[in-house]
Amino acid sequence: MSSSTYSSFKLACIQLSVTSDKNANLINAKSKILEASRNGAKVIVLPECFNSPYGTKYFSEYAENIPQGESVKTLSEAAKEANAFVVGGSIPERDSSGKLYNTCTVYDTKGNLIVKHRKVHLFDIDIPGIIKFQESETLSPGSSLTHFETDYGKVGIGICYDMRFPEMAMIAARKGCIAMIYPGAFNLTTGPLHWELLQRARALDNQFFVATCSPARDMTSTYHAWGHSTVTDPNGQIVATTEHEEAIIYADIVSSQRRFDLYPDISAHK
Amino acid sequence: MSSSTYSSFKLACIQLSVTSDKNANLINAKSKILEASRNGAKVIVLPECFNSPYGTKYFSEYAENIPQGESVKTLSEAAKEANAFVVGGSIPERDSSGKLYNTCTVYDTKGNLIVKHRKVHLFDIDIPGIIKFQESETLSPGSSLTHFETDYGKVGIGICYDMRFPEMAMIAARKGCIAMIYPGAFNLTTGPLHWELLQRARALDNQFFVATCSPARDMTSTYHAWGHSTVTDPNGQIVATTEHEEAIIYADIVSSQRRFDLYPDISAHK
Repeated sequence: MSSSTYSSFKLACIQLSVTSDKNANLINAKSKILEASRNGAKVIVLPECFNSPYGTKYFSEYAENIPQGESVKTLSEAAKEANAFVVGGSIPERDSSGKLYNTCTVYDTKGNLIVKHRKVHLFDIDIPGIIKFQESETLSPGSSLTHFETDYGKVGIGICYDMRFPEMAMIAARKGCIAMIYPGAFNLTTGPLHWELLQRARALDNQFFVATCSPARDMTSTYHAWGHSTVTDPNGQIVATTEHEEAIIYADIVSSQRRFDLYPDISAHK
Repeated sequence: MSSSTYSSFKLACIQLSVTSDKNANLINAKSKILEASRNGAKVIVLPECFNSPYGTKYFSEYAENIPQGESVKTLSEAAKEANAFVVGGSIPERDSSGKLYNTCTVYDTKGNLIVKHRKVHLFDIDIPGIIKFQESETLSPGSSLTHFETDYGKVGIGICYDMRFPEMAMIAARKGCIAMIYPGAFNLTTGPLHWELLQRARALDNQFFVATCSPARDMTSTYHAWGHSTVTDPNGQIVATTEHEEAIIYADIVSSQRRFDLYPDISAHK
């Protein structure tokens, strides 16, 4: 961690165009990570379910063991080559017992897999006649909260529906996180209603940055992602956003005069 | 409480025009409460600091003992005559030791003072060159959270800056409240930035109604209130709002199929 009283870094969210061709998705993801790195990004975020179409019928087919699978291998190489932290959106994970999870893997600048987050709050929605989707048909929920250290401060991770539950972000803030990152794929119903409101609320309430990263929208797929990957500052104001096509957004994340060297974990103080 | 599985009531927020004439403020408040009642309101809300101009230099002069003061007497009569619950915005309160508080008093339909809330989070702000205001120069903070029972369900109370801290609303929701009411006077700096965002966030995160009630704006006073009294539904959508002039807004508050007779306090269940 820097000993100066002021540090900032460039964050990139890659609103990736995801197809049914896993290998093409991995090649595209790596290419975009390197592009973001060339543009100065030091923390690079991929969207939820970036190696697979989003849908309960796809999860088993596209699932991988972690860390043995090819997606981890690709992201590890990409992080090392980019010399950047990579928040690997999410992929369907299969554990040794055969259970499936919606899992985010995170890599340091050397390409080491440093942490993984399994989506805690599964997305079960049923608005009659409009949208029905039940992750719990095939997925199991994670059972822990996830934070990781960067050179710039601690960062919290949630996945999509996790953003609806304020406790996760509140705890991250109390643990000293300077930002919360949510790979997520809201849809054309929940996106206009709540996507922006939720992330602005998390940022303002917890006085930290919030980044969301969605796949690009594909109207030929069975699930239509809202897009609108966004970065919001601690004042609740949007500092970077986009529409629904493939894009990379950038924002400077400032962790100003805080001295995390003196109080790495405020919740540990009595 | 109704034994039906569906109940609703009309709530009114009175965006009162507040002057430096306390007696005129009380007469106007009572008149508007009766008007709201004639229009069917069963819970009627006044703004923060409705009997006094808002400013640290005024609080001592306008302060009253509770329940002996004239503001309590007026609101009690108004609630009884209106046959409605009255959430009496706030007034400067002086306790027996001489300390001052920013205090909301609440009355049932018989005119009984049933609860009071002393503002917990004092409004201390200093944006150089733009706005400086320090309630803590003259006020003491309250030290408890406040909920009260109506015929329609339990309601939580916070005052203005209290809305910035999500814990208060979160606890109210866990205690079974169907709504949170915040008398409040944001200003021309914080109003456009955060007034709407905060109340929509509280409503969506806690899945209940949120009502805010501001004084009307008076550009001849030393503090310029934002106005924009608003009611937001549990989906985070605004169902009633207004600009900055004196006005009464109305909204139907639905406490649908919940059975609070079976689970009056979920936090008491193990």
